[in-house]
Amino acid sequence: MVDKEIVVGIIGAGRIGKLHVDNLKNISNIRIKTISDVFTDHLGDWFNTTGAENLTKDYQDIISDPEIDAIFICSPTNTHTEIIKEAALAGKHIFCEKPISFSDEETLDAFEAVRKAGVKFQIGFNRRYDRNFSKVKDIVETKQIGELHILKITSRDPAPPSLDYISSSGGLFVDMAIHDFDMARYISGSEVEEVFVQGASLVNPEIGELGDIDTAIISLKFANGSIGVIDNSRQAVYGYDQRLEAFGSKGSANVKNETESRVEFLSEDGVKEDNPLYFFLERYNDAYIKEVQEFFEAISNNEEVSCSFEDGIMAQRIAMAAKESLDSGKPVKVKMLDKILK
Amino acid sequence: MVDKEIVVGIIGAGRIGKLHVDNLKNISNIRIKTISDVFTDHLGDWFNTTGAENLTKDYQDIISDPEIDAIFICSPTNTHTEIIKEAALAGKHIFCEKPISFSDEETLDAFEAVRKAGVKFQIGFNRRYDRNFSKVKDIVETKQIGELHILKITSRDPAPPSLDYISSSGGLFVDMAIHDFDMARYISGSEVEEVFVQGASLVNPEIGELGDIDTAIISLKFANGSIGVIDNSRQAVYGYDQRLEAFGSKGSANVKNETESRVEFLSEDGVKEDNPLYFFLERYNDAYIKEVQEFFEAISNNEEVSCSFEDGIMAQRIAMAAKESLDSGKPVKVKMLDKILK
Amino acid sequence: MVDKEIVVGIIGAGRIGKLHVDNLKNISNIRIKTISDVFTDHLGDWFNTTGAENLTKDYQDIISDPEIDAIFICSPTNTHTEIIKEAALAGKHIFCEKPISFSDEETLDAFEAVRKAGVKFQIGFNRRYDRNFSKVKDIVETKQIGELHILKITSRDPAPPSLDYISSSGGLFVDMAIHDFDMARYISGSEVEEVFVQGASLVNPEIGELGDIDTAIISLKFANGSIGVIDNSRQAVYGYDQRLEAFGSKGSANVKNETESRVEFLSEDGVKEDNPLYFFLERYNDAYIKEVQEFFEAISNNEEVSCSFEDGIMAQRIAMAAKESLDSGKPVKVKMLDKILK
Amino acid sequence: MVDKEIVVGIIGAGRIGKLHVDNLKNISNIRIKTISDVFTDHLGDWFNTTGAENLTKDYQDIISDPEIDAIFICSPTNTHTEIIKEAALAGKHIFCEKPISFSDEETLDAFEAVRKAGVKFQIGFNRRYDRNFSKVKDIVETKQIGELHILKITSRDPAPPSLDYISSSGGLFVDMAIHDFDMARYISGSEVEEVFVQGASLVNPEIGELGDIDTAIISLKFANGSIGVIDNSRQAVYGYDQRLEAFGSKGSANVKNETESRVEFLSEDGVKEDNPLYFFLERYNDAYIKEVQEFFEAISNNEEVSCSFEDGIMAQRIAMAAKESLDSGKPVKVKMLDKILK
Repeated sequence: MVDKEIVVGIIGAGRIGKLHVDNLKNISNIRIKTISDVFTDHLGDWFNTTGAENLTKDYQDIISDPEIDAIFICSPTNTHTEIIKEAALAGKHIFCEKPISFSDEETLDAFEAVRKAGVKFQIGFNRRYDRNFSKVKDIVETKQIGELHILKITSRDPAPPSLDYISSSGGLFVDMAIHDFDMARYISGSEVEEVFVQGASLVNPEIGELGDIDTAIISLKFANGSIGVIDNSRQAVYGYDQRLEAFGSKGSANVKNETESRVEFLSEDGVKEDNPLYFFLERYNDAYIKEVQEFFEAISNNEEVSCSFEDGIMAQRIAMAAKESLDSGKPVKVKMLDKILK
Repeated sequence: MVDKEIVVGIIGAGRIGKLHVDNLKNISNIRIKTISDVFTDHLGDWFNTTGAENLTKDYQDIISDPEIDAIFICSPTNTHTEIIKEAALAGKHIFCEKPISFSDEETLDAFEAVRKAGVKFQIGFNRRYDRNFSKVKDIVETKQIGELHILKITSRDPAPPSLDYISSSGGLFVDMAIHDFDMARYISGSEVEEVFVQGASLVNPEIGELGDIDTAIISLKFANGSIGVIDNSRQAVYGYDQRLEAFGSKGSANVKNETESRVEFLSEDGVKEDNPLYFFLERYNDAYIKEVQEFFEAISNNEEVSCSFEDGIMAQRIAMAAKESLDSGKPVKVKMLDKILK
Repeated sequence: MVDKEIVVGIIGAGRIGKLHVDNLKNISNIRIKTISDVFTDHLGDWFNTTGAENLTKDYQDIISDPEIDAIFICSPTNTHTEIIKEAALAGKHIFCEKPISFSDEETLDAFEAVRKAGVKFQIGFNRRYDRNFSKVKDIVETKQIGELHILKITSRDPAPPSLDYISSSGGLFVDMAIHDFDMARYISGSEVEEVFVQGASLVNPEIGELGDIDTAIISLKFANGSIGVIDNSRQAVYGYDQRLEAFGSKGSANVKNETESRVEFLSEDGVKEDNPLYFFLERYNDAYIKEVQEFFEAISNNEEVSCSFEDGIMAQRIAMAAKESLDSGKPVKVKMLDKILK
Repeated sequence: MVDKEIVVGIIGAGRIGKLHVDNLKNISNIRIKTISDVFTDHLGDWFNTTGAENLTKDYQDIISDPEIDAIFICSPTNTHTEIIKEAALAGKHIFCEKPISFSDEETLDAFEAVRKAGVKFQIGFNRRYDRNFSKVKDIVETKQIGELHILKITSRDPAPPSLDYISSSGGLFVDMAIHDFDMARYISGSEVEEVFVQGASLVNPEIGELGDIDTAIISLKFANGSIGVIDNSRQAVYGYDQRLEAFGSKGSANVKNETESRVEFLSEDGVKEDNPLYFFLERYNDAYIKEVQEFFEAISNNEEVSCSFEDGIMAQRIAMAAKESLDSGKPVKVKMLDKILK
């Protein structure tokens, strides 16, 4: 529970910014004071439902507002590190959407700024807060499956984003698989040492023409000796396919897909059940709420956040290694954090 | 959506009253003004979280308040009809928890009062608003299973209530199976004409000593020619078991249980999955929210409620016929509504 | 294992007779010597695959053959008791298809003959030998579910037999539900004391015109205090629906349907799995083999058969009580065996 | 159906040889004449149940017997190619267990001999004949999933073999994963062009000391552009884990594990179902029968076998490429067949 009011500013009111605002409204002791977006004209109606006080085109109105305790960075990725540095300097706690940036150097710069300022920083790996994945994390950590041998993650979107989006997204690894890289680290409790990628543009060749892929098998070698694999697709026509299997010396724990209902329909055509939930908002709605609750509790109780800047850096580095593997056709080592920072 | 503010009073702040209050807080344009309960001393802390203005021992403070548009009757069953009549006279819209009363006559009296007053009246058969049962209702209605032949309902509580509660509950039929009687009518779209009960007190013989049963098989004959069966138990140690099967000439639709997670754990001991959700609040949380939203929308748009006084009367009559069948050891016809009311 | 050769005669080479012959071929030390059927003309090709020595129109050729140790009665029901009596007198062990007869008196007559002769007699309740039902029997017997409270059996054929067949079948209870009555006794380990039937002809009104029903809910009261229900349909378009649930004080054991494959197909239309196996021969093939193996082992080792004449009598009596309940609209007590026989 | 008697000789009466003999006994028109094994002393009792005429230590007794039409090679891998060449020269049809050999050259030699002789040759990739995998093959071939994008195979043994066995087995790829390599080619209908392996000895470090691994993730790149992954373990404590997923542009088809029963047990501890079948003989029993039936039908009707010498060669080559990848830590191209043979 959050005991004392926390005043919040939201930077970026796209899909994910709006999602956070809508969730924050229902958390007690959270006051959304200001929302900024470079385009505000179309936001009026929605803004009126938020209970926020100010809508601005300039996020500096948030950074410079001494009353604001914490900010949410939901703007495009290429703006993240600049905002992080400014906000840290202004002493704001920061919740930042993934990925932190497209550049390891810029990310480390921002990390340094956050460390110096001593503010809380949480990265938006919402899937850690999903009850299914949390449960498997717990099963692995308590060694109910013994030692982890194989970790398998299936992560497929229901439909590819627009080609425009893909062009500016940083590519499949940094935009989409980054969640899976974090999940691999989270569930295994180990760093990923090496990746190897088989990738292709099978969903839409135009994605390939943009230099990206839409289908991938990513082999993982963990520091603790276990191995793993992620498979990604930009298009699972049957829904948002989010599964995971943690296999070990004493058993296995599997996350199956969530569905809209538990209704089974039998006819001459066979037994039919619901597809996996189609929208990520629907699938991870509870997780989106839980992640921000934990962020505010960390602020309120001055505790460590459960998904840190380091988690953001490492997921990003795995994504970069994956890109390098795809380009070179070879396995690539992931740069470890302790080798870089003093 | 509710366009204009609706002011609400809550009569009875036991478990179900509190549940409604907690849900109402998150519905926009609903203002909870007054909460009454015969015992208010222990309610202070909770009341402070409700945002309501007044806490009173006397529900007349609600009935007589001209600002209040709608009331929720969550007090013990034996107080329902009196409150209904007073509230109707005062022109309040009424949401009433099940059962309406223990007496058909008193229920009809209250019904008459509501009809004369022309206020909205909704009975709290929350399961109608569950997404699983709604989906099967739709499948049946659209004849995807062809003509309904057999309707089967399994409805088992995780643990029996206290003997004290049982003594004053009106018994298994009126207290517990009444939801299933309503579900039978809802899914089939037909009245139940005849019931036959096999009942026993197998969970706890003391329940039998109180003249009640804890385990039942209730055969149903529907007016539309199809047949059905409900099985009830006061104790399913593995959780709140809420299933349904609608079997027809072209197929079958089944509702399976909801679970906390979709995690499957394999070990030498077998494949293990979650039990059905244990608490009814957890299982039907979304349904509790949806039923009150529809109530307020019916008020707001001056539409028919989706779960009416007549529905309450008929479920109660089936319960009474079931009791008579248990006592007599014979099948019993259910009194139809059109034979009684002019 | 059967140590010494057992010579077998088969009376009746319809569908079930052929099934047994085909299974017997693969059991070592079993020699099928003679097969009789009133119509033999069309049987030539099949007979040549059986390895049997003689094909005859007259079953007396089997009864009077001193070399034959055991007979299988697979002829129409109305011939059973006469054949049983003759075979018993001739000292043959008897495997008899269900039901024994349409008349309790004739059945008891035949029972007396078998008892006097001291031959083995097994009734063909094949489902007892299904690995799923056996497993639940074991779970119930070892009290893994604690005390049995509710037993539920779903038993639905994929398609109704011809009207001709129905006319001479003895009706749904004696022809079809008799398996379920036996299963109720087998799983519960208790006699059925009382039955109540809700029945209808919803699949085909012509079945109703023949005085039979095609859809039924049969409530059961067991001697041990527990209760149960069977639901039957002559037509489950999605396959042969054979399920069972044994619910008790400490848990529940459920038999789900068997399917042809374990393949799951996901597309935009949902997740699709196989229907239940359609043919009873396919569904219970292993059980048909196991029941005759146990019959031969009982002969070979001079042990009790696992499915006795008494089991046949009692299932038949429950069927008769069910018919009486359907006709009278009232619950009916089942005649117990010990009250009748000295 | 096999119209004319086929006389068979069995070379090697270890576990798999016995399995084939036991299955052959029940296929009509198949006569097992001679069984050879280097150790025959302990085989007497079993031999007496086979109905075969001769038991010999010298497989030449089979090769040189003009009456014998077909042989089964079930002896150790290092004897295969020699026997194949001799048998081909003697005009025998050949059913050979996998792998053909440990050497590509020896395998090609034997292939040449078989081609010259024009005898039928079938390799024992039994899983192709499993009803589940066949069904997915059909779904893929008929493009019900559209174009194949990702193929995933999980193949885990319940327990590792003895270290002795592992020493002489040729290693995980040639001994165990070879089935999965064949399955990858079979389901995709495409050659595997490149493999990359992440492997480890996590089950038992002694397996690592023998130069083998017990856990592997094998990435696959197919000639048709799709990608895939196999995960192997020598020890899944919960049973023989045999699953597959074929994911494509229009959907996905998954093979789930087979289980002993369809019984579900619910208690306070959760919902429990059967583990996957533990023994490969149990899991693939039907497939072992079907593969030899198809072999005999190919002989009988002079048709192509459904699992050819080429299939054996290619699976072996993928295994060799996998070994090379493991040793080098790099992706390795698979040698294609058309580049080698004229």
